[in-house]
Amino acid sequence: MDLNKLARHAGEWLRGSGTDADIVVASRIRLARNVNDVPFVSRCTPDQKNDLAHTLSDVIIDIGIGRDGHYFSLEDLGEIDRLLLVERHLISRDHAEADGARGVAFDQHEKISVMVNEEDHLRLQAFRSGFHVEETWATIDELDNQVAERVDYAFSQELGFLAACPTNVGTGMRASVMLHLPALGLTKQIEQVVHAVQKMGLTVRGLYGEGTQASGSLYQVSNQVTLGKAEAEIVQNLASTVPTIVSMERNARQVLMEHQRERLEDKVWRSFGVLRSARAISSEETIDHLSQMRLGVNLGLLETLDMGTVNQLFILTLPAHLQKIEGRRLEPKQRDIFRASFIREALGES
Amino acid sequence: MDLNKLARHAGEWLRGSGTDADIVVASRIRLARNVNDVPFVSRCTPDQKNDLAHTLSDVIIDIGIGRDGHYFSLEDLGEIDRLLLVERHLISRDHAEADGARGVAFDQHEKISVMVNEEDHLRLQAFRSGFHVEETWATIDELDNQVAERVDYAFSQELGFLAACPTNVGTGMRASVMLHLPALGLTKQIEQVVHAVQKMGLTVRGLYGEGTQASGSLYQVSNQVTLGKAEAEIVQNLASTVPTIVSMERNARQVLMEHQRERLEDKVWRSFGVLRSARAISSEETIDHLSQMRLGVNLGLLETLDMGTVNQLFILTLPAHLQKIEGRRLEPKQRDIFRASFIREALGES
Repeated sequence: MDLNKLARHAGEWLRGSGTDADIVVASRIRLARNVNDVPFVSRCTPDQKNDLAHTLSDVIIDIGIGRDGHYFSLEDLGEIDRLLLVERHLISRDHAEADGARGVAFDQHEKISVMVNEEDHLRLQAFRSGFHVEETWATIDELDNQVAERVDYAFSQELGFLAACPTNVGTGMRASVMLHLPALGLTKQIEQVVHAVQKMGLTVRGLYGEGTQASGSLYQVSNQVTLGKAEAEIVQNLASTVPTIVSMERNARQVLMEHQRERLEDKVWRSFGVLRSARAISSEETIDHLSQMRLGVNLGLLETLDMGTVNQLFILTLPAHLQKIEGRRLEPKQRDIFRASFIREALGES
Repeated sequence: MDLNKLARHAGEWLRGSGTDADIVVASRIRLARNVNDVPFVSRCTPDQKNDLAHTLSDVIIDIGIGRDGHYFSLEDLGEIDRLLLVERHLISRDHAEADGARGVAFDQHEKISVMVNEEDHLRLQAFRSGFHVEETWATIDELDNQVAERVDYAFSQELGFLAACPTNVGTGMRASVMLHLPALGLTKQIEQVVHAVQKMGLTVRGLYGEGTQASGSLYQVSNQVTLGKAEAEIVQNLASTVPTIVSMERNARQVLMEHQRERLEDKVWRSFGVLRSARAISSEETIDHLSQMRLGVNLGLLETLDMGTVNQLFILTLPAHLQKIEGRRLEPKQRDIFRASFIREALGES
């Protein structure tokens, strides 16, 4: 697999299709798994990590994930390549920045990724564009069963799956949806929604996980607790809460269209105006304007654009993607200039 | 003269031609004159104002200014028409808002305007695009002589021309240039320049006179003192100071082009981006973006646009002009929407 090719198109989670895809960008479930009788990654010797990386990558490839060169030893990749995988949500930022033998395998559609020697020996992930938590669960559950046939998991009858971090003990599951909630932001209801969601035992975070800002009105909603709950229950809790958020966002969009259409139209077109005109632009500013444009396209206010173009730009304009596309390392200032020119071209500006 | 026609093109002061027209938008000189043995306007009875308006308009039309229907009794004009004349600098805001018999005459090219019963009985004004203070002086001096042959001016051998406001006693002259100084603003030198200019006995104001902000980096520099100085001296003082300011602005532009070209290009294009995309925009914001674009066109950074379009937009997007063009009164919110659409059309956006 050539990472250069990867950098030129959006993966599964930004495909923009599936149920409620105008609001639910993607669904994702990950499972934390560890091998029985081997220390957790943080306590492994370098040799143990090496052994784990070999054994587990063989298992994954044997199952069919990471074939055709889709397995990468992260210690062999350069910084930009590792960041590229982070930007695509195929690995975590911690995994990119860690030391020692570790890797990632994913399928060519990027619907599944498996991290080896992240915080846990194995982190299995499944993605699906749109609101499809149950289907995502079916995918990851099947993968988990296949791995379990080949690996002796660290499991306690009492606690469930053991994990390096106590918050992951039990099911080891984090089920999440990525939501695009611009109208709840514009109508100042987002804080209220976040509080309500938290009361349901769910966590709300920004686009790139813990501690990241909700740039571009993109939010990840996920389960808080992994202990003492069955997987199906976690999936069900998320699956039953999301429609409420979706309908609140949809209502807010309708209110905006009815009472502030002109203001909204202006906002959306100004974002388009900046993106098709700027000669230098940061990643953060780009995401904010793309977010407005995404809303505009969904509401039929920006008819000249298609959603595919907007979705692609969300990921292709991130730092590592841009550098892969340009084929060389770019300093932040150069990146801002290249980003602006790349966006103009994508938007059909001469 | 049909004021509707007037509203569709820029007059002399925005023609954008003449010496140093990239920086010196226009030159203007006005003379304050009063009729001997008649009270100043503020002390006139309504009948006296009526008599003055009749007598003086006859004189002006006899000279040839205000022929072909270019004389307007302001008390007969609606609010939008009066504001239109203010926006074109043909009358002052005070003149527009005053009561009683009063008027204005101007030639078809708007190089000369004569206000009757403003603060003084007569305010003679000459305009010229670009840096042409001496030529403007020649024009207004000739007009002044022609009026003096027909009107007995209030004149004191000791003080010079008498005027309603002590600051105008003497020559009654205010000579000014309108400068576009965006680069001095961007390089944070404008305060310093303003102080230096003030030390030369000159005043710096915004686009629409006293108390107005320097929106769009447009400044009026004019003489402070009218008493104890000959007209030629005042003209000379202005004419010799302006080239220094012009060369400072030119240097600042060069510095920006050499050291911050990318930043500047981005700024200019973003202004273009907003103007060709916005769906609602205020007059103030429009002027700021036009100012950036004017700089961009002058520096060859915005090659798709010509200066004529930009200059026209400075005036045609002002509130009264827009309402004349649309042919009806528009509330501020409607105006902002119509302004945005008018600008998009002018910039060739569909």
